Amino acid sequence: MVDRILISHGNGGKDTQNILQKYIFSKLPEYLKKTVNGLGLDYLDDGAVIDPEDKIIVTTDSHTIEPYFFPGGSIGKLAVSGTLNDVIMMGGNPIALLDSIIVAEGFPLDDLDKITNDMISILKEFNIPLIGGDFKVIPSDSMKGIAINTVGIGVSKNPIIDRVVDGDSIIVTGPIGVHGAMVAALRYGIETNLKSDVKPLMKLLEIFDKFQGDIHAARDPTRGGLAATLNEWAQLSGKMIIIEEKDLPIPEEVKSITELTGLDPLTLANEGVAVLSVPSDKAENIVEELKKLDFEPRIIGKVIEPKDKNNKGIVIMRTEVGGTRIVEMPTGDIVPRIC
Amino acid sequence: MVDRILISHGNGGKDTQNILQKYIFSKLPEYLKKTVNGLGLDYLDDGAVIDPEDKIIVTTDSHTIEPYFFPGGSIGKLAVSGTLNDVIMMGGNPIALLDSIIVAEGFPLDDLDKITNDMISILKEFNIPLIGGDFKVIPSDSMKGIAINTVGIGVSKNPIIDRVVDGDSIIVTGPIGVHGAMVAALRYGIETNLKSDVKPLMKLLEIFDKFQGDIHAARDPTRGGLAATLNEWAQLSGKMIIIEEKDLPIPEEVKSITELTGLDPLTLANEGVAVLSVPSDKAENIVEELKKLDFEPRIIGKVIEPKDKNNKGIVIMRTEVGGTRIVEMPTGDIVPRIC
Repeated sequence: MVDRILISHGNGGKDTQNILQKYIFSKLPEYLKKTVNGLGLDYLDDGAVIDPEDKIIVTTDSHTIEPYFFPGGSIGKLAVSGTLNDVIMMGGNPIALLDSIIVAEGFPLDDLDKITNDMISILKEFNIPLIGGDFKVIPSDSMKGIAINTVGIGVSKNPIIDRVVDGDSIIVTGPIGVHGAMVAALRYGIETNLKSDVKPLMKLLEIFDKFQGDIHAARDPTRGGLAATLNEWAQLSGKMIIIEEKDLPIPEEVKSITELTGLDPLTLANEGVAVLSVPSDKAENIVEELKKLDFEPRIIGKVIEPKDKNNKGIVIMRTEVGGTRIVEMPTGDIVPRIC
Repeated sequence: MVDRILISHGNGGKDTQNILQKYIFSKLPEYLKKTVNGLGLDYLDDGAVIDPEDKIIVTTDSHTIEPYFFPGGSIGKLAVSGTLNDVIMMGGNPIALLDSIIVAEGFPLDDLDKITNDMISILKEFNIPLIGGDFKVIPSDSMKGIAINTVGIGVSKNPIIDRVVDGDSIIVTGPIGVHGAMVAALRYGIETNLKSDVKPLMKLLEIFDKFQGDIHAARDPTRGGLAATLNEWAQLSGKMIIIEEKDLPIPEEVKSITELTGLDPLTLANEGVAVLSVPSDKAENIVEELKKLDFEPRIIGKVIEPKDKNNKGIVIMRTEVGGTRIVEMPTGDIVPRIC
């Protein structure tokens, strides 16, 4: 029997880690995982700091959402926003974007038109040049729809390296689970007023600038959701992260969709929310500044140095009813496939 | 009736230019087509110089060849070689690569294994770090096979800006049409011993270094072949390019496949050949140096300032029988679809 790719291999959680580990990382010698003095695959992330002198940040992302139009956006808006957000989450000021479009024969040109409009309206809004790209068509018997790959380039004096520190507070900048719940509702035919939260988080750069050195980690919890981001942080630092269920900003519409579908809001994708890890004594101050910029921030938990070494690298949630549960790295078909 | 994407929209020739013009470039204001002092979409190419002080070169490419294994290589070898070549053709020394893999559910893992092996063996051979990427799985009812997007990053003191100059000689660094003819043979079921010429052209950097300032233009004529490259150069510079059919290094196996299929060898993709435009008085010297590096270079034509203004931006070929024909920018289904 031939081993084959499963949908779950693309879930952005443990299965994707396993497949990347097996088919890419394990084949690379350590010295080919980063540039001189730079960051690379030894630090798992979408982006890469090329050179600490130039502080050029490059990120790349493939977007394949189906349907490619959805309440609140399109694959075009998602692709550009997502890549800008990847640059921003590394502390980078986006200076350019490249795109590469793969589209199936027979794809409606009107739809392509709307999609490129969405891409370009964001570039215009934030003054981001598009400096190159590629465009391929695949026969309709090999592919349906459209896939967009984007490359983001940014500059930064102080890239954010995502190392959570003992005593940090964890902040989310807005309601969670919205994009993933919206896609789930579409897939399962559930009526809802939810719209995707997809948007570039450019205003966060003001916070990063103001609180330089205090942003120990920043990430947009897209595929795999908050559960994937917090688990990656806990694993990278060997710390324990504790979140409080009562403090999670989960909108009622998201809750009702997760109750109907059995999905976990912590694994649902967000496309316009960031998670930050900051020193506890600065957390309230950062929350206040985020509010001034129209974010809806909440402190949802903290980072601790666990006494029991078995608790290193894990994430737990104190539930509203007074218990605790382990928040696992997402595994299997998280679904709905969202990006 | 709905207008739809055609296979020909991905041909890398006039139709791709038209669709990019209509759906992307025409929507972008001029000031969003490049970075400050950098190069961007105003200069049509796969890559982009980010900043003339840093001279960071970034290129991106999507690869979708079917079949993904072929004589002489695989989509993995093609993706990495093609992107390194794009960096090199801009005069850049490749310093890093990012990759983004989109693969269909059900794709055999053994094949993925071979493909990533091919990618990584080139990275190892030339010491190029892989510094980031993405990995997505698409349901088998939406896509078959695999698509690989690669981002190449290079540095250069003197990027090559592709401006051919009156009096230049045109050099090709090896036999032409091989990759395209090999794919055509596969598609049409023609028996042949042809193997793809796919390979990184890293050794060209020695030539570029030695003849700094004399390499007026350099390109790897992939999709759209020599015809597309020469037409783009003629159009960009407003010059006329004249090539000699008798001097074209077209292997016998390529000739017999083009005779059987009616394909034009000038439009067939090359994956391990470069075209250079250099001052005539340096051309022989450059040819000699290329030979020392195991290339099989040929001077195939020249650039002139046409007396008749209607001849600006065109490419003509003097045929072996003593006539001339216009070499058009490829249009329609060039095919076989090769990348």
